[in-house]
Amino acid sequence: MHRYEVQILRSLKEGPKSFWKLLDEQDEHIKGFVERLKALLEAGVVEYSDGKFSLTPLGEERAASLLPRKDVRCPHCQGGYTFSVFSEAFALYHRLVEGRPLPNLDYDQGFMTESDVFSRVAFLYERGDLEGQDILILGDDDLLSLALASTGLPRSITVLEVDRRIVEFITRRSQEHNLGITALEYNAASPYPLKEHAFSVFITDPVESEKGLRITLSRGAQALKRGGALYFGLTTIESSWHKWYNVERMLLEMGFVVTDILRRFSAYPDSDNHFDEEFYDRTMMRRLMDVEFPLPADADWFRSSFIRCEAVEEPRPLVVGEVVFDTDFYLDEETMATPKFV
Amino acid sequence: MHRYEVQILRSLKEGPKSFWKLLDEQDEHIKGFVERLKALLEAGVVEYSDGKFSLTPLGEERAASLLPRKDVRCPHCQGGYTFSVFSEAFALYHRLVEGRPLPNLDYDQGFMTESDVFSRVAFLYERGDLEGQDILILGDDDLLSLALASTGLPRSITVLEVDRRIVEFITRRSQEHNLGITALEYNAASPYPLKEHAFSVFITDPVESEKGLRITLSRGAQALKRGGALYFGLTTIESSWHKWYNVERMLLEMGFVVTDILRRFSAYPDSDNHFDEEFYDRTMMRRLMDVEFPLPADADWFRSSFIRCEAVEEPRPLVVGEVVFDTDFYLDEETMATPKFV
Repeated sequence: MHRYEVQILRSLKEGPKSFWKLLDEQDEHIKGFVERLKALLEAGVVEYSDGKFSLTPLGEERAASLLPRKDVRCPHCQGGYTFSVFSEAFALYHRLVEGRPLPNLDYDQGFMTESDVFSRVAFLYERGDLEGQDILILGDDDLLSLALASTGLPRSITVLEVDRRIVEFITRRSQEHNLGITALEYNAASPYPLKEHAFSVFITDPVESEKGLRITLSRGAQALKRGGALYFGLTTIESSWHKWYNVERMLLEMGFVVTDILRRFSAYPDSDNHFDEEFYDRTMMRRLMDVEFPLPADADWFRSSFIRCEAVEEPRPLVVGEVVFDTDFYLDEETMATPKFV
Repeated sequence: MHRYEVQILRSLKEGPKSFWKLLDEQDEHIKGFVERLKALLEAGVVEYSDGKFSLTPLGEERAASLLPRKDVRCPHCQGGYTFSVFSEAFALYHRLVEGRPLPNLDYDQGFMTESDVFSRVAFLYERGDLEGQDILILGDDDLLSLALASTGLPRSITVLEVDRRIVEFITRRSQEHNLGITALEYNAASPYPLKEHAFSVFITDPVESEKGLRITLSRGAQALKRGGALYFGLTTIESSWHKWYNVERMLLEMGFVVTDILRRFSAYPDSDNHFDEEFYDRTMMRRLMDVEFPLPADADWFRSSFIRCEAVEEPRPLVVGEVVFDTDFYLDEETMATPKFV
C-alpha cells in the first residue's frame, strides 16, 4: 500500500476526522492529498458526512492490517520522537538482541543504542514507511531488522550483510520467533544481487568514505522503486560539509530529494560496543593530537544524523556492478574514527 | 567570532572538558576540530592538563560575551528542542509582540506561535548561529528579530521587510527597549540593497512559489559570506517533493549544503492569525473539493519544516537585480493555501 494511503487510512481508523485533521496527519502536498482523498471517496473506501470523513465497511477491510494512528511525537518539545510508543516491540527487541555478535573492527562495525533504534522505528512509522512496506537493509549490525520485525508492521524485511555472524544471528532469531526476515550474505562491493527497483524502503548505516557512500547509496538506488524512501546515517564527525555537499549532489543526481535530516539522532556508545584501547589505537584520530587522552571516553561522542530521501523518479544508481574492495572503500582522509591500523 | 570557536569556548566556559566531551559539544568534523583546538592551544586561549581542556585567563577574556553552554535538547526524547531554555528572553518577547500588526493577506503573511519562534532560537543557539553573529532576516511578520534581540546574544540584527507596519512596529519596540535592531522597508523583488556577503546568518520564511523561492534564496546567497548559515521554512503542504527537489538543486548550485531539515517544526495557527472565512475564501484549496468544510479548522494544519544550509564556498545567487513583482511571485499551481482571489 502506498505510504500516503497508509497515512490516511490509519488516521481514519482512529476515528472520523475533519479535512484539516486528516491533512495534518499525512505528508503529501495538498493537491496530491485532495486527489487521493477524492479517489478514496469514489472507490467507496471513505465517506463524508457532517463535516467528517470516515471509513466505510470496505475501508475497514482495506485498513484491516493497519494500526489506528499512533502519535510518535514527543509531547514535551518541538521536533522530537519518543522511542517508547512501540513498547511491546521494544521489549521483544531487547530480548532478541541478547547474545548479539560484538563489532568486528575489520568491517567498521559499531551499533547504536536500543532506544535510538526505536526512535528510528518511530520516525519511519510516522512517514508511512513501515506498515505494509517492503524494506531492504544493507548492513545490519544494529539489528534494526529485528526491531522492525518486532512491530509486526512491514510486509517484508530483507537484510544484506557482509558479516556471516550477523546473517546467522538474524536468521536464527527470525526462525525462533517466526519473524519472516530474509538475511543474505553480501558484500556491497559486489553487484547488487536482488531484483532491481523492487523495494519501497531502503535503510543503511554506511561507511563514511566518499567512495563507500557512493557505492552503498547506489545500491539503494538500484533497490528502490520510484517514490521509494532511502534512509541512511551520516555524521559531522567523519564527514566535512564539503563531503556532505558531494553526497547531496550524488543523491539529486540519482533522482532523490532529501526530505529530512535529523541531527544527533543516533549514538553508538563505546561501552555497548566494547570499544577499548585496541579500537582507539587503530584510528587515525589517536595520532592527531600531541597529547594522550584518558580512556574510556566520558561522552558518547560518535553520533549520526538520520537522513531520509524520497525518489522523485525511478532512481538511477551512479555505480552498478563490481567495485574493488580495498581500504578506499572504508577510509578517506576524514574518516578518522574508523579503525584502520593493524 | 566563528561559530565553531563559539561552540568550543562556551563549552569550556561551563568548566574543564575532556577531548571527547568537547568534540561532542560542537559541530565541526574531527579533523577541522582538532586543527581549531590546536590553534587555540598555541594562541594561549586554551590549556590542557590532567586530561582536561580549560580556558586560560586570555580565554576567559575572549569568551567574555558568551554564555556558559546551555543544553537546548529535550531530555525526554530524541531529536527535540525545548523552547523554554531562554525563559527570560521568552517572557520579554511575549511582552514585546503585544499589539503586533495582524496579517495582511496581500503579502502572504501568517505568523508562527511564540513557542515555535523560541524552538528556532534554541536550534540556532545550538548551531553557534546566535552568539556574536551578524543576522539578516528577510520578511519578519514572525517578529523573530525581537526574539533574537531578547536573548542579547547576536552581534547585530537587520530586518528587510515589505510591510511598513511591521518595519515601524519592530523599530518602535527596538527603540523602546534599546534592542539595536535595524529594520528597513524592502520588497524582495527589488535589487538586494545592502553590502554583499556581509552576514553570517540569513533567515527567511519565504513564499512557496518556485519563482518566489528562487528569488528569496538568491537574496540570501547575496547577503551571506562563505561559511554563512541560511535558514528557511518550507512546507509539505504547498510544495510537492518535485518542488523540494528543484529547491535543493538551486541550493547546491548556489554553493549551499543542506545540514538540517526539521519536519513540522513551526505551526501557524488560524486563531492567532485571525484567519477566518475571508482567508479561506481567497485560497485555491477552498475550491478543490466538492463539499464545504466547516470552519474554524480543528487542527493547526499549516506547519513547516525548518531547513538549515551552510555555504561551503562564497554563495552565488541565481538571481540578481530587479524582478517583476506579479502574482507568480506568490503563487504557483501548488500554493493552494495562499490567499489569491479578491
